[in-house]
Amino acid sequence: MEPKPHGGRLVDRWMPEAERSRREAELDELPQLVPFVDQVYDTEKIGIGAYSPLEGFMDSATLDSVLRTGRLPSGLPWTMPVLLPIPSDTDAKTLARLQAGEEVALLDAGRRFIGLLHVDERFRYDKKILAQSVYGTNDPAHPNVQDLLAAGEETLAGTVDLVNRLTLPTERSELTPAESRALFAQKRWKNVAAYQCRNPPHTAHEYIQRVTLEREDVDGIFIHPVVGRLKKGDYRPEVILQAYEALVAHYYPADRVVLSPLTISMRYAGPKAALFLAIVRKNYGCGLYIVGRDQAGVGRFYAPTAAHRIFDEYDIGVTPLRYEESFFCRTCGWMASGKTCAHPPSDRIDTSQTRIRKGLSEGGELPVELLRPEVAAILRQPDVLLTE
Amino acid sequence: MEPKPHGGRLVDRWMPEAERSRREAELDELPQLVPFVDQVYDTEKIGIGAYSPLEGFMDSATLDSVLRTGRLPSGLPWTMPVLLPIPSDTDAKTLARLQAGEEVALLDAGRRFIGLLHVDERFRYDKKILAQSVYGTNDPAHPNVQDLLAAGEETLAGTVDLVNRLTLPTERSELTPAESRALFAQKRWKNVAAYQCRNPPHTAHEYIQRVTLEREDVDGIFIHPVVGRLKKGDYRPEVILQAYEALVAHYYPADRVVLSPLTISMRYAGPKAALFLAIVRKNYGCGLYIVGRDQAGVGRFYAPTAAHRIFDEYDIGVTPLRYEESFFCRTCGWMASGKTCAHPPSDRIDTSQTRIRKGLSEGGELPVELLRPEVAAILRQPDVLLTE
Repeated sequence: MEPKPHGGRLVDRWMPEAERSRREAELDELPQLVPFVDQVYDTEKIGIGAYSPLEGFMDSATLDSVLRTGRLPSGLPWTMPVLLPIPSDTDAKTLARLQAGEEVALLDAGRRFIGLLHVDERFRYDKKILAQSVYGTNDPAHPNVQDLLAAGEETLAGTVDLVNRLTLPTERSELTPAESRALFAQKRWKNVAAYQCRNPPHTAHEYIQRVTLEREDVDGIFIHPVVGRLKKGDYRPEVILQAYEALVAHYYPADRVVLSPLTISMRYAGPKAALFLAIVRKNYGCGLYIVGRDQAGVGRFYAPTAAHRIFDEYDIGVTPLRYEESFFCRTCGWMASGKTCAHPPSDRIDTSQTRIRKGLSEGGELPVELLRPEVAAILRQPDVLLTE
Repeated sequence: MEPKPHGGRLVDRWMPEAERSRREAELDELPQLVPFVDQVYDTEKIGIGAYSPLEGFMDSATLDSVLRTGRLPSGLPWTMPVLLPIPSDTDAKTLARLQAGEEVALLDAGRRFIGLLHVDERFRYDKKILAQSVYGTNDPAHPNVQDLLAAGEETLAGTVDLVNRLTLPTERSELTPAESRALFAQKRWKNVAAYQCRNPPHTAHEYIQRVTLEREDVDGIFIHPVVGRLKKGDYRPEVILQAYEALVAHYYPADRVVLSPLTISMRYAGPKAALFLAIVRKNYGCGLYIVGRDQAGVGRFYAPTAAHRIFDEYDIGVTPLRYEESFFCRTCGWMASGKTCAHPPSDRIDTSQTRIRKGLSEGGELPVELLRPEVAAILRQPDVLLTE
């Protein structure tokens, strides 16, 4: 059956139309903040219910509970802080005056009015404790730890009203949890498996998707690439979506896959991020969640199976589908994993992103065992990677 | 977790050693029957607990319950009659005298003492009602209906004591339910998926086994080919087992597969046979059961999905893993099914037994997409099929 949203009810903090017009007209009278882009994304996600049951940015009691127990004060599993650190070097005057009880307009970098924050609390948080609890490290080589160290020392808590959707990094529309749930219901899909990704699909991804699609308890898969803030060398969101569209159109049966971007910034917190990403997909209507090896990991910060194990520690009401690393085995002549193939690693074709990027940059043909030609054609277009 | 035997307790009707010696010495003083080979197999299976909770051949009340409801009188699901029809043309004198309360020695065709039947009841059964209920037809073109029409008009009911194991059609030993359970426990396998088969493995079988092995809730698979009574043109049991050994040894990781024959005669009752075969595998310690398309079907007697649907009607405490027909798709370049492949049937390589037998008999090379070369080598040996 389709899962209930996390906490039982899908949060909807869209500001009603009439109020929205009034508030937009009065924008100049409100204190204004331009948060870091990650928090602009989060503002929208809170508003559309992607982070249900969160209705806003976390207060100190909630943060403390999440860091200590991996749960909200209600006991509901929740492993990632959702904070609104105040940029320390901008809007200094606005901030100096802000107190609980006030309202603040949250603007995107283009100064579009995205959300209205009802400030409940303003507090300092301990970055070391946060980093150690969430990312398991204080090492500034960890990209999210680096971001955290650069963030403001204080954070604002309070409920958020969504005034406008994000301007998306792609030209595609992005399904809200209410929309994806309605779409699954229209397709009569009760059991949807969410597929988390950040890169264009190669054969190892396709294998895991197909193994999932063969399951009798899966009606369809929701391919939900995270396409938020990019770093140099990342594939552009448009390219990731085009590549998935090519795979789906050329290989998968009609009506077994729904594809939509998810514009948030990636939290490379390994197990805690994997659980968070599964909870988010539960809100989008997915009762099963595909967990690859070292999901949401970065560098060597997490044990490859840590993201698998955390689903034994927390019951989030989602069935994890945990897969090992997969590869093409020359001796089998098939895609496989260590669970299905007896042959030594030397028989395997390396299907890593590194290998694919190298192959593409060298301009030669990539073996079909590695990348579908229709996907390769997308990735061979000019300017697919972010260069700055 | 490993499933309890059907009904909660593994039946063990091995005659104690001391009694066995005495009874064997007194064999000539007992009435003797040589049942049809199917019932010799069943005698052993009852004795080792493969048919738990059955302790013997069914009486009229049990048969009536099974035919009317698909359940034993206790309410436990059970869809196949297990009867001991009295051969009408042999042992006529013995039979004429037999009454409830007597003991009968059940001998195999070589007049080996297999089991001792404690006769509870002797009754006539309605072959038409049985055939219609179990096989869904009275058509003598159905092989089991044909057998039924040839069987005796009366059947004996009563508990069975097992005196000797079968002389097996292969040189291999056959695991009992107690042995397979002990082996799974020794391997620390809690979740074992049973694989029912009657033929050497080709790629479509391998695909379903691999998709199953990729599941996180499967510790291993129990390949359990039914190798009972043969008809002309069937592969010899030895060949089926050798072919599976070749596949397992050359392709699967060590310690993910247990292989053992199951010497019973095949009941081609489609859905009712599939449920029965799953219950038997539950007794062998398998909590998951792979159900292919048209399992235990013959000709066009059953809808291809009927064997899938019956698992919704009866809860036998086993997780069915229901798979569609699979094939090699030239465009995908992969094994697939209608659930994972978008391409037309003309792209598929026919992986039917018919196609494989034709290819083998013509002597040419069979494509690796159809049959593993190591398996093909086994099937190319002389005299692999029963010729009479």
